[in-house]
Formats: sequence, C-alpha cells, structure tokens
Amino acid sequence: MKTCTDETVIPTDTTIPVVGEAKVNNPIKFGRFVSEEDAVLVNISKRNVERTGKARKDPVHQYFEPAGPRGKIYYDTSKTKCAVVTCGGLCPGLNDVVRAIVMTAYHQYNVPSVLGIKYGLAGFIPKYGYDVIELTPDYVSRIHEFGGTILGSSRGPQDPEDIVDALERMNVSVLFMIGGDGTMRAASKVVKVIAKRELSISVVGLPKTIDNDINFASPSFGFDTAVETAANAIRGAHVEATGAPMGVGLVKVMGRHAGYIAAQSALSCQEVNFVLIPEDPFDIEGENGFLAALEKRMHDRGNAVIVVAEGAGQEHLEDSNQKDASGNVKLSDIALMLKSRIVEYLKSKGIEPTLKYIDPSYIIRSVPANANDRIYCSFLGINAVHAGMSGRTSLVISRWNGRYVHIPMSLVTKGKKRINVCSNYWRAVLESTGQPISMKNE
Amino acid sequence: MKTCTDETVIPTDTTIPVVGEAKVNNPIKFGRFVSEEDAVLVNISKRNVERTGKARKDPVHQYFEPAGPRGKIYYDTSKTKCAVVTCGGLCPGLNDVVRAIVMTAYHQYNVPSVLGIKYGLAGFIPKYGYDVIELTPDYVSRIHEFGGTILGSSRGPQDPEDIVDALERMNVSVLFMIGGDGTMRAASKVVKVIAKRELSISVVGLPKTIDNDINFASPSFGFDTAVETAANAIRGAHVEATGAPMGVGLVKVMGRHAGYIAAQSALSCQEVNFVLIPEDPFDIEGENGFLAALEKRMHDRGNAVIVVAEGAGQEHLEDSNQKDASGNVKLSDIALMLKSRIVEYLKSKGIEPTLKYIDPSYIIRSVPANANDRIYCSFLGINAVHAGMSGRTSLVISRWNGRYVHIPMSLVTKGKKRINVCSNYWRAVLESTGQPISMKNE
Amino acid sequence: MKTCTDETVIPTDTTIPVVGEAKVNNPIKFGRFVSEEDAVLVNISKRNVERTGKARKDPVHQYFEPAGPRGKIYYDTSKTKCAVVTCGGLCPGLNDVVRAIVMTAYHQYNVPSVLGIKYGLAGFIPKYGYDVIELTPDYVSRIHEFGGTILGSSRGPQDPEDIVDALERMNVSVLFMIGGDGTMRAASKVVKVIAKRELSISVVGLPKTIDNDINFASPSFGFDTAVETAANAIRGAHVEATGAPMGVGLVKVMGRHAGYIAAQSALSCQEVNFVLIPEDPFDIEGENGFLAALEKRMHDRGNAVIVVAEGAGQEHLEDSNQKDASGNVKLSDIALMLKSRIVEYLKSKGIEPTLKYIDPSYIIRSVPANANDRIYCSFLGINAVHAGMSGRTSLVISRWNGRYVHIPMSLVTKGKKRINVCSNYWRAVLESTGQPISMKNE
Amino acid sequence: MKTCTDETVIPTDTTIPVVGEAKVNNPIKFGRFVSEEDAVLVNISKRNVERTGKARKDPVHQYFEPAGPRGKIYYDTSKTKCAVVTCGGLCPGLNDVVRAIVMTAYHQYNVPSVLGIKYGLAGFIPKYGYDVIELTPDYVSRIHEFGGTILGSSRGPQDPEDIVDALERMNVSVLFMIGGDGTMRAASKVVKVIAKRELSISVVGLPKTIDNDINFASPSFGFDTAVETAANAIRGAHVEATGAPMGVGLVKVMGRHAGYIAAQSALSCQEVNFVLIPEDPFDIEGENGFLAALEKRMHDRGNAVIVVAEGAGQEHLEDSNQKDASGNVKLSDIALMLKSRIVEYLKSKGIEPTLKYIDPSYIIRSVPANANDRIYCSFLGINAVHAGMSGRTSLVISRWNGRYVHIPMSLVTKGKKRINVCSNYWRAVLESTGQPISMKNE
Repeated sequence: MKTCTDETVIPTDTTIPVVGEAKVNNPIKFGRFVSEEDAVLVNISKRNVERTGKARKDPVHQYFEPAGPRGKIYYDTSKTKCAVVTCGGLCPGLNDVVRAIVMTAYHQYNVPSVLGIKYGLAGFIPKYGYDVIELTPDYVSRIHEFGGTILGSSRGPQDPEDIVDALERMNVSVLFMIGGDGTMRAASKVVKVIAKRELSISVVGLPKTIDNDINFASPSFGFDTAVETAANAIRGAHVEATGAPMGVGLVKVMGRHAGYIAAQSALSCQEVNFVLIPEDPFDIEGENGFLAALEKRMHDRGNAVIVVAEGAGQEHLEDSNQKDASGNVKLSDIALMLKSRIVEYLKSKGIEPTLKYIDPSYIIRSVPANANDRIYCSFLGINAVHAGMSGRTSLVISRWNGRYVHIPMSLVTKGKKRINVCSNYWRAVLESTGQPISMKNE
Repeated sequence: MKTCTDETVIPTDTTIPVVGEAKVNNPIKFGRFVSEEDAVLVNISKRNVERTGKARKDPVHQYFEPAGPRGKIYYDTSKTKCAVVTCGGLCPGLNDVVRAIVMTAYHQYNVPSVLGIKYGLAGFIPKYGYDVIELTPDYVSRIHEFGGTILGSSRGPQDPEDIVDALERMNVSVLFMIGGDGTMRAASKVVKVIAKRELSISVVGLPKTIDNDINFASPSFGFDTAVETAANAIRGAHVEATGAPMGVGLVKVMGRHAGYIAAQSALSCQEVNFVLIPEDPFDIEGENGFLAALEKRMHDRGNAVIVVAEGAGQEHLEDSNQKDASGNVKLSDIALMLKSRIVEYLKSKGIEPTLKYIDPSYIIRSVPANANDRIYCSFLGINAVHAGMSGRTSLVISRWNGRYVHIPMSLVTKGKKRINVCSNYWRAVLESTGQPISMKNE
Repeated sequence: MKTCTDETVIPTDTTIPVVGEAKVNNPIKFGRFVSEEDAVLVNISKRNVERTGKARKDPVHQYFEPAGPRGKIYYDTSKTKCAVVTCGGLCPGLNDVVRAIVMTAYHQYNVPSVLGIKYGLAGFIPKYGYDVIELTPDYVSRIHEFGGTILGSSRGPQDPEDIVDALERMNVSVLFMIGGDGTMRAASKVVKVIAKRELSISVVGLPKTIDNDINFASPSFGFDTAVETAANAIRGAHVEATGAPMGVGLVKVMGRHAGYIAAQSALSCQEVNFVLIPEDPFDIEGENGFLAALEKRMHDRGNAVIVVAEGAGQEHLEDSNQKDASGNVKLSDIALMLKSRIVEYLKSKGIEPTLKYIDPSYIIRSVPANANDRIYCSFLGINAVHAGMSGRTSLVISRWNGRYVHIPMSLVTKGKKRINVCSNYWRAVLESTGQPISMKNE
Repeated sequence: MKTCTDETVIPTDTTIPVVGEAKVNNPIKFGRFVSEEDAVLVNISKRNVERTGKARKDPVHQYFEPAGPRGKIYYDTSKTKCAVVTCGGLCPGLNDVVRAIVMTAYHQYNVPSVLGIKYGLAGFIPKYGYDVIELTPDYVSRIHEFGGTILGSSRGPQDPEDIVDALERMNVSVLFMIGGDGTMRAASKVVKVIAKRELSISVVGLPKTIDNDINFASPSFGFDTAVETAANAIRGAHVEATGAPMGVGLVKVMGRHAGYIAAQSALSCQEVNFVLIPEDPFDIEGENGFLAALEKRMHDRGNAVIVVAEGAGQEHLEDSNQKDASGNVKLSDIALMLKSRIVEYLKSKGIEPTLKYIDPSYIIRSVPANANDRIYCSFLGINAVHAGMSGRTSLVISRWNGRYVHIPMSLVTKGKKRINVCSNYWRAVLESTGQPISMKNE
C-alpha cells in the first residue's frame, strides 16, 4: 500500500578536504582538542551496521569527523579575516549563528575582522551597491534577541567567479555561508573557483532549512522554534473549529517536500484531526478520499482541524511551471484549493461549515529562536569557526546522533530528507489525529 | 482637509427599565450596596460640560447608573434560573465572562441553575437540536485558561418569538447575552416580546466587539489582548521587511468600520510605517497617494511595514453587495488588492520588492485573554449578575471613565465608535509611523 | 468593623506653574492644539460633584489641565537641550518612556540634544564620575524591546543645589524626572532651587510606582505588566499546591503600603485562596485569625494558595527601624515569618503541609512592558515633552479618567493611594478567593 | 588541574526481563512492528567502539533494545488493567506522559481501565485514604495544557509489599511509574516482590529528573522547558544587574549533583558572567577564588550575573546532615551564603553593590511543557505502553542517540550523570561567561 521511504542514506565517503597542512598551534588555551578517535558512527542501528558490514568488506563502519577545535590549525588567526553571509528565506536562529561565529572568531582566535555580507549572495556583487558590515562583538552582542537576520538575506544565485573576486578583494580567508541546499550548491561552486585559482580560502557551510529536510542535519536549526510557533497557530484553529457549529480550522504550514513541521506540530498540539504531507499522497474525492473522511469526522464530532504542508497534494494541482528566484518550483496553493473544495463538498452533503483559514508562515519564520535553538545555533557557529580555522573547506557543520560533526558539502546537497510513512513516527501522528491510515481509493 | 469625527455621543436618556419593583433583600452579606449618589458623569471634559449646560438647561449633567449590587433586588434568587449565550465572532475573554456570571450567580446569589445555550441564538431553536449545558462552578472553573467560547457561537438572527418560547420552556428568569451590535439589537427585540407577553424575564447584554467600535464601551473586552497579539504579528512583518532587500511587510488586521486594532498595535510596535484605516480615506494613485508615499519610503529606507484594517479603502473596491450570516456587508479584500498593486507599482518604478503578507485574524480572535482582559471580563460578568438580579432589563454592562455602569441597550446600538482623525491619538499614530498626514490628492 | 479608606483626595488647587510666558509658535504642523476648554473633571461621580458643590461655593468643579501640545510655547525648541533621568527601583516601561521623550523632542520639536543621565540622581554628581549619554533617535529606536532602563537607576537623594549646578553646566532647559514619590519630592526641591536662581528650566515629572500607589496616577505605568507577570508566578504556586498532599503555595509580591499587585493578580488568576494586604489588617492567631482560616481550607480542600503583599501584616513583626537608600523603612519579611508559622501551626494540628514559597519580585520588575503599557508609556513621554516645551514646570504627567492631564507635583507627593477595603473592588477579591471577610478576632 | 569526569558508563548487560512468553497477536493494525535488527548501539564514537572491542572480545558492540510495538505481546489487552503513578518533585511534562499512556492504552490496545494513583507511592497505601482516579481519554484530553501533575505527587518510599498488595487488590497488570532514581529503586523492589509472589505484573519506569542527571536519559523530559524558563529568570537578573551602579544579579537554579540547568540556561542567555556547578569545585576566598574574580569583573564592567546550581560549593557549607522525605540529603543554601559573602567582600573592597537575588525554582517546576517536551513525553508514554503490553518488566523507557529504547532499570539507578568539566560543552559555557577556567587557588 504505502511506499515506504527509507530514511537512511549511506554515504560513500566522509572525508573533508583541506586548503593546506595544519601547522599552526591553536591559540585556544583551555580544554581538550579533538582527536580522531572521537569520530562519530553514521549508522547506529544494528540493522544498518550489519547490513553495511555485509555489503562492503572494509571499512565496516562509516564515521563522521567530529567537530571541535584542533591542536594544529592552518591559519595564523590573528591575521585572518572572516566573512559571513545569510541566504534564502528567514529561519529562527540566523542571528544566533552569526553571533556565535563573531564571538568565537574574536574571543578565541583573535581574528582582526569579521565582515557581514548584506542581503545574501547579492551582497558580494558590486553592482547592487550593498555595504559590508564590520561585525564586532559589541555589534552582535544582543542580536540574538531579535528574529530574522541582521545581515538581511536574498534568494537566487550569483556568479561564483564574482563571489571569489569579492573574497579576494576583501582579503577574506574563511567564508561562512548560511543557507539552504541552493546555497550549499553555490558554496560548492565557490570552492571550485577557489581551487582553480589556487587560493587558500576555506568555505564552511551551515545548512538552514525551516522544513527540516536536509540530509544529515537532524533536526535543522530553527525547526524546534518553528514547531512551537506553528503549534500556537494550530491551537487557534482548534479554538475556532470548536467555537462554531460545523467548524473547520485549516492551517497551512511550510513543507515543500517534507511534512515535518505539519507532523511535529500536530504531535505537539494533540488537537489535529488531519495532517496532509507531501510524502503520503491522498485522494481528494472517492469513498476513501480526504473529503469523505472529513465528512465522517464532521458527522461524528461536528468539527475538524486540518494541517496541510504547502507541498502536499501537488498532484491535484495544475503545475504552475514557475520558479522563484532561488530556482524552487513555485507550488500551486493546495490550501486555497482545499478551502474551496471542503466548503463546496460539505455543503453538497447538507453540512454548512464555518471554515477558518490560518497561514502563519511568515510569523513562524520571523520569531526569535527559542532557548533550545539558541544553544544549538551557538554550537553550530562555534564549531564552524573551529573548522574554518583548521583549514577545512567544502564541509558543513551538523549535529548527528547528538554530536557535532563535519559533513562533506556534497552529501548534504544529495537528495532531501523525508518522513518515512512506514515509521513509528508517522504512525504516532496518524494515531494522534485519528485520520485513516490511507486516504487513497485503490 | 480632514473631516473630523466628533467622538462624543450625547445620550438623551440614561434610565434603565425594570421588570418589577425590587423588594427582596439582597442575600450578599458583605460590602457596600450601590447608592444612587454613585452615578457616573457621562462627559467629563469642561468643554462638554459647559456645552451641554448651555444647550439644555436642566439637568446640566448626564449620568450613567453605576453597576454593582443593590440592597433590594427583584428576584428570589434561590429559585431563579439563569441562561447565558455567546454570539458572533470569537473574541478573547468570552469564557472569562461566562465563568464570572456562573460563579457570581452560584456563590453570591445561590441560584439553582445557570444554563449554557450552545452556538449562539441558534441554540434556542429546537430544530437545530443543540443540547443545553448545565453550567456549574465546577464545570467552568478552568475555562478561562482557554481561548474561544466553551458554549460555541454562531452568526445570524433567530426569531425573537422562538427565543422567548425557549426561555419560557426552560423557565429562565435572567438571560445574559454576549455579542456584538447585531446581538444587542436581537436582545432589544427579545425584550419587546417579553414585555408583550408580560413576563418577568430580565435581559442583560454584554457588548462584544474585537474592533472596539461600540459606543460607551471603552475599550471593549478582548481588545487589549487583540492588540497584544496583533503587535506580535506586526513584529514578524518588520523582521521580514528588514530581512530582504526592498522588503515590504503587509499585515491585515480586523477593523470593519474602525481602525482601532491597526492604530493601537502600530503604536505598541513603533515599527510600522503606514497605518490605513476606514476613518481616514486615502488615494492609492497620484502624487500624494499611498503608492507614491510608499515609493518614497522604499527609496529612503529600503523597507516598509504596512498595517491595514480590513475595512480601510473600501471605496477603491468593487462593492461585493454580499452579506454574511450576521447581516454585515461582506467587505472586498483591500489587503489582497494592495498586495498586487504595491508589487506592480514598485516594479514599474524599478524597485523589485520582496513582499510578505500576514493575516493574523483568527490567531488574534482565538487566544485566551491576557491578565488585564481577564479582570475586565470578570467584572463585566459580576456586574451583569448584579444587574439581572435587581430586576433591571434592556441594559448593557460597560466601563465608562473607569467605572462599571449600566447603559440602556438602545444607546449601544446607535451608531459606531470611530477614531477621530483630528485627535491627538491619531496624530500620535501618524507621528509614530512617519506617514504623510494626508494621502489624498486634492 | 472595617475601617473604610476613602480613596478620593480632593485637590485644593490644580494650577500648573510656568517658567515664563509662552510666545513662540509651536513647530508642530499637524493636529489640534489643546484648548483650555478640554479640561478634565477631577471627580466624576454624582456624589463627589454634589458634595464638592456644597462644600465649596466656587468653583463647583475641580478640573485638571489637559496634556498635549499648545499653540504657543515657551522655548525656542531648536536651541533647547533636554535631559532625562530614571530613579528608584526598576519598573516595566521605563525604556518606553525614555524612547518617547527622545523621539518627540527630536522629531516634533527639533531639539538639538537629549541627554541621558546615568544611574539616577547620582548621575548629576561629578564625584561619581558617570558619563552622560547622548540619546539620539537611533540610539533609542529599539530600547523598548528590553526590560529595565538603559540609563541605569539608583536610589537615594542628592543635593538639589548640585543637581541644578549640573543642569546649568550642561545647559539643560527641560529636565524629565522619572521616579517614585521620593523622586517627585526631589524634583520639587530642584524646582525651588531653579526659582531661587531665577533660571528658565522646566522640570517635568513622570510618576513611577510598581505598587500603583501614587495618587492621581491610575493605574501607574508598568502596573499592568507587573500584574500579568505576578499572575504567572501565582499560577505556578497553584500547580505546586495541588501537586502534593496538603500543598500550600505562598507567593510574596510587591506592595509596601498598597496591595494592588496582590489583589489584581489574584483577580486575574482566580486560583488564590488568601490575599493579604497592608490595607486590611489580620490576626494570625485566634479562632478568626489567618491560621485558623487556613486550617479550615486545608481540611476542606487539601491545598491553598496564599498571596501576600510585602507590606502586609507589618504589625506582627518587630520593627527593623532601618531605612534603605531611598529613605523607605526596611520592611521585615512577612512572607518568611508566615512560612514558618504556617508549617509549625499546621503540623501542630496534625497536617503535614508541603509548602512552596515563590518570590517573583525581581522577575516582575525586569520584564519588558506589555503592549498596553508600551502605549501608555509612549503617551506619557509624548505629553511630557509637550508640557516641558510649553514652559510648564513642577508638574507631573498622568492619566485621569482615561485622559492625559497635568497634575501639580505637590498633589502627587501628598499621601499614597490605597485599596478601599469597603469597595466593590475589594469585595470582588474576597469573593474570588473565598477567604473570610475579616480575619480579626475582635 | 581539573578532574575530568568521563561521561560514558559502559553497561555490562542490556537484556530486559519479561513476565512471560509473548504469544498474543498485537491488536495494532497499522505500521511496522519492531524487529530485533533495530537495536540501537550504546556507544557511537570510534573511541568507545574500539576501546570496548579491545577490552572485551565478545560482543564488540553493546546494543539497547529498541522501543516500539511488537508483533506478539503477552497480555490479552482487552482484559488488562493498567495503573499510573507520579512521584517526587514536579517537572514539566508529567501530564503529557500520563495522557499518552492513557490514550495509547485505550485507543491502541483497547484496555478496559487505566487507574491514576494519587499523590505518589502514598496513593497505594490504604491508611492515607486517597481515592484512585479512573483515567479515561475524555478525562485526560486537555491535561497537557496544565503544568504539574493531575495525579498529585509525594516524596518518600512506601513498603513494596503494600504496593504489590494494592496492585493485586486493584487487579492491575501493568504499572507505569514516573519518578526519579528513588522511584526507580522503589520500582525495582516492587518487581522483586512481584517475582517472589509469582505474579504476572509488568512494571515500566519513566525516569524523571529536572536536573537531567539520570544516566542513559539524554536529555530527561522537561529539561528543555526548565532551561527555557530558567533563561527568562536569568534575563531578569541581567536587567537588574545592568540597571543599577555595581549591580549584581544572583540566580539559584536546580541541580543537586549536576549543573546542567545552570550551564544550559547560561548558554541560552549569553548574558551570564559566572556559572557555579557541583562538578567544578571553586574556592571562594584567595587570589584565584570566586570573590576575587567577581571583584575584577565589577571593576572592569560594573555589573555581573551569577548563576549557581543549588548543589554547587557544598564543601563550603556546614553539613546539615538532614534528609528530606525522599532520602535526599538536605543541601545547605549556597546561594544565601554567597549573597552575604559577596556583599560583605565587595564592600570591604570599596564597592557598594546592588545585589538582586532570584530563585525561580518552583516557577520552573510548575510550567506546562513546551512543544519539544510535549512531543518527547508523548513518545515516552506511547512506548511505555508498548513495552508493558509486550510483557517486559523492570525496564525504563528512554531516548538514546535520538532513538527510543528499553533500558534495564538497574542501569538507570547506577550512578548519576554529570557534566564533564574537560568537555567542549563545559568549555563553551566558560567561553560564553568569560569566567576563569579555574577558580581554585592551588
């Protein structure tokens, strides 16, 4: 029935490139430096370990390199300029990452300057005329209390040659790029241009996705805050649905290819009756379809709360064939379609619904990070600086099985993480909603 | 230039009708009973006092009757059944009012029963088949922690004869009606049917309007909570607007005829650049129009936050000529119109805006009341019971100049309160936004 | 039984002094200037109006002068330097007041400079060596998002001669003083020194009291936020009290001479069983005393929540005879005394209580203002600037019966506002708690 | 210098006992049942894997059994009664765990009854006379919106024979015990009595610790919420410290043997200058001691925020030698001691500090769980029911490396988890505070 998506991507290579040999003593005075023995196992379930073992003789296990400070580093940090850029849509925690990078670079590695690039990749391109910001500890000290990004952001690619020109012009040795998979692909191109020009510039990525759909970033930063904020909106939908006869609360949340926000916030609320996600296709019409299931709920209980991920049910919509500035396909609006279909259908069945539609997307994207995400973002930023100073490049910082690790940039841009609809996780969602296990007719 | 709206409505009569003579001793043991000397002056500014004085010789002052317990009451409360109904759209504080009515009726007046009517006026009508809820102190003890109304609500009128039939059938002596001006008009009709049938049933209204546009209710309950919640959404719009090059944050808030939520939440945020309200008409095109002013802002600062009340600029929209179930004219959507016009116009001027649109309406309506509104709602409910038990009818409970008072129902349904665009209040809004004093071309 | 405190203080004179004749045209371009006809009646209940009428022949009514911009002002504002100082304990909203003063002075009156005095009155005194801050619109633009005061504060008096020396040295023409009644008394002394030296310096006060106990400030700014925050702590006490057998939650809140925070937050929570305030003395021992009443509650319900104002029951404590830096008598700790007496007493009666004590004082004082207080503080700051520029001095800005008014400084320092224990307000508190009307033995 | 605590406890046996052979088909219709291949590796870092490999030949890896539903279970669930008890201090999320247990038992396993035991282990003992609650889905449906535990809790042991008597009397087959390590030890004793009497009763533990100090529970439920709430209190301390000349904010948080709340909330706030925890001993006096470091901070910056875990610095206090009802040693109050020493010391150095002390403990314990903890608690409860129905006993449910697992009860009560003061985690805390790496004199 269900096509089970297997979550596990087995990496073939977890080696991180470097810009040169690390010979400089790390100026950090306290604490353990990372040893290679600290490597973190990629797959931790018995099934995977054994399977991997059988499949490939040597090595039996795949490890990720641990993040953290190294005893020997590459740059003479007191002469090393850094730069930070934030790209793509807003996500809680951006300012926390920026702050941690600046604080660690200044206070631990004594770098002379951290530049803030304005408005995403466009900030590298002279024709836009955006000024660069000098990010000092004083400048960033309270930015974590605000949502959004103090650097500004923008969507869309820029010529990697132009970006490297800018890095050379500004004399930047370590570049921190915070953004989604488009940004990570851009970063890979920048790395190639740097290599071609034989420059010693490290590029460290910090994967950002409010949809939580990046492989090997689990969860992505800001996701916890997003769920908390989405849950508040859903609570409102529940109040509206139960506040009117035949009340229906419909909430659209982010989730282009993966329904994590929808699923997780439904779990948190415990008051959702239908969760529609891209990974679990459904029919709208028909006796097993969504509308019939909704009708049954309305008959039984007189109200319903529906949470729909923006990418769900795209097969029922005409393809817009348009793309946004980041190159993402513009999704047709499933929520508006459902809204009119629900009202029409229920009326045809003699039910006069009171439907209230809530789209909390930009509220979710713009709130400051909660305590949990603040700490997570701090560690991502701290470890990004350690990685950059060590001379590593073309990697991203992530948390895997609870440890901070280095992941090759190429792994992160390969495919997207999705909810496995055969998992206990998705079952828990279905149980908490009480929706049918499948809403397909065949 | 501006047409100043004078806020002051001078009531011609503030007398409250009664269903019969109050001869029963009030069972409340503690505290002062209200004396007629406590009457509260309607108009308190010198200008009004003098003007009134000149216009009408005797009496010089108009007073509202104070709310509160009377030494002598009408009903033998230990045998008096009450009923409560909530009507119209959701508003923070409904459950607090219901709770206070139940607690006061039970604990102070020892009434045997308070009935909760489900889903607004429809709950009185047998054909809908809604059950009545027995509202006990235990049942309501924690309802104030939830948003919405535990009774449910609905829009639209019902035949007052049917309503009074239901009151007779259920043996209700005091009816508490919580709703907007449509509900208050319905209440007046119910009062007339009761009088015609020569029944001893008191009807006490509790005016509800999230728009804060009811005369002599200042502010209306739930308004403070609504402003606080709207301000959070606006903060999100500000973050989005400053997070992208040429960012525009557009927020639509409630306000059909009065822009109080828009104005007040803008004052609270201090980060809004344009507030558009029904009371202050504006041109969209033209050199003094809104788009030109917005263009200037974008040139000067690179971002803008716009808050628009749903009833603003209706003159620019085709009349839909449709009405909702409550009989309110369905407004055309000014925000969606502005959204497309802004993008189109700015693009034509060479500005590529990133516009983010937020509609927090149902989130605002569904949150629980904040501490301030909780207390306010408690006192409204408490005083409603005092009024009902005293045998008063056809009145509403309100706060006026800081005191709880009785207001004749007829006064409340006469006209709507609006922002005076010549007032210091509106000036403060304009100053905090920096928008032009007028956006009319002539 | 109860000694009723009459809240109404009848002022004998409401005239506001000026530093000189207002001859300069107000540079504000938009809106109505205040006319003297807008004066606001002091007492609005029939009782008071009539009584006043009988007592004093002429005038029958007392009016407060309305706040707001005047057509003619005293200072040539483009050459007028201002200064702001915050004194005493923290209170939500301080930064909002400061921000509004700076924004109004700059944007509306084009003043060249607003100085921020650090750490209260000590900031005027050279020996402490505190720098003065130049408060620009840019500097203050986001300060309202933080709690506390960016200026810092301190307690205690300084020599008014030294303060005026500093004003002369810095060439300040208008001084805004934000603080409690101690600060207002200091302000009066500064006014006298200014008069003696024949200087043209206006002093405008903004009364601050988290206890809400200043006459003619109703409520004081920050009070609403304080109640909201206190209510959260009380909710915690309720959870603790019901989470253990024989659970007792004891919460101490601010309120040296007036129990407004205790009473108001109890009303907001609806989960408090005893509110102890300075205005309503109680016995601890004896058959009608507090402990006996608590014992009864524990027997009946198995738990209790007690909210005690810090100034309650001082007659049961040994006088410490100490004063703090502001000259306030140091209160002995009623809460710690109650804590040990409760445990001891209940144990002696065979009840093994689980008592949890919460003191949220500094959390309450340090939160940012909520939406309601933000707007209130803005208008206080705006109107303070209007008053100062007009040449008025020795006044405070307040809200009275919903209008912003000028009040002579002398009125505000005369006595304290207290809860009237015979009022409907206090009755509502007693009803919501269910505590005995009196806990005195005689 | 520092004594590094090695966090890794290597379990010798991870087998879970059963009450009998699982032969019954699981009534759950949807989803994958757990296979033994899903086992989760205990140690995931290369170092540990290799070290374990060297130390003990066979097996190389230790696995925890995965939590989740089994195809074959032990109980005929439609005839199986369950019971739930909550023990010890309050912790956010208790109601969420209870709710998930009830919902899963009813909706998935169709059990006829889930009993709620009142007030901890005392609820089993007849002499206390506490009623048992019938926990239905309807009863628990909204309890997750409240803090605390609807069951009530208590501290202290009860005779395991009496507890098993009660289980027999009530005909309970599966007992869920939520509590700290004392409770888990009590659970082990109950298991032994059950075995001795040859009864078929499963006992499933859910480890609860607001201190986050239980081995193999990482983090413990409620910890994230606790950190978020503590961070708010610390923010207040920061506002107070910077709001006065020489301001000191001192916050005491929970943490008897482990400083996780102190460390984590300091990381979240980024505004703390000293974190004092039990794992990192410090001198108070002396040139490298805490007071000297504080004095330096006050000279340099004029303010300081100090967060102290309640168990820190116990070596500086006289041993109270008292124990509470749970048998925990009563700690002497380090915060009150520091408070007086700080003031005394700074005064002796010519600094007049304004110290504000905040103890948010009971506020932290009583808040409702945040979104993250809600979901976590749901899964703990769901998996507890799966484990119980399968006939497993003497185990706890935990999350390990992101997976839900079964852990032998004995492992959890062996030792406590503590912060490793040589870890990158603790270094990050020290860096964020800027406090000296060591405050020991030798």
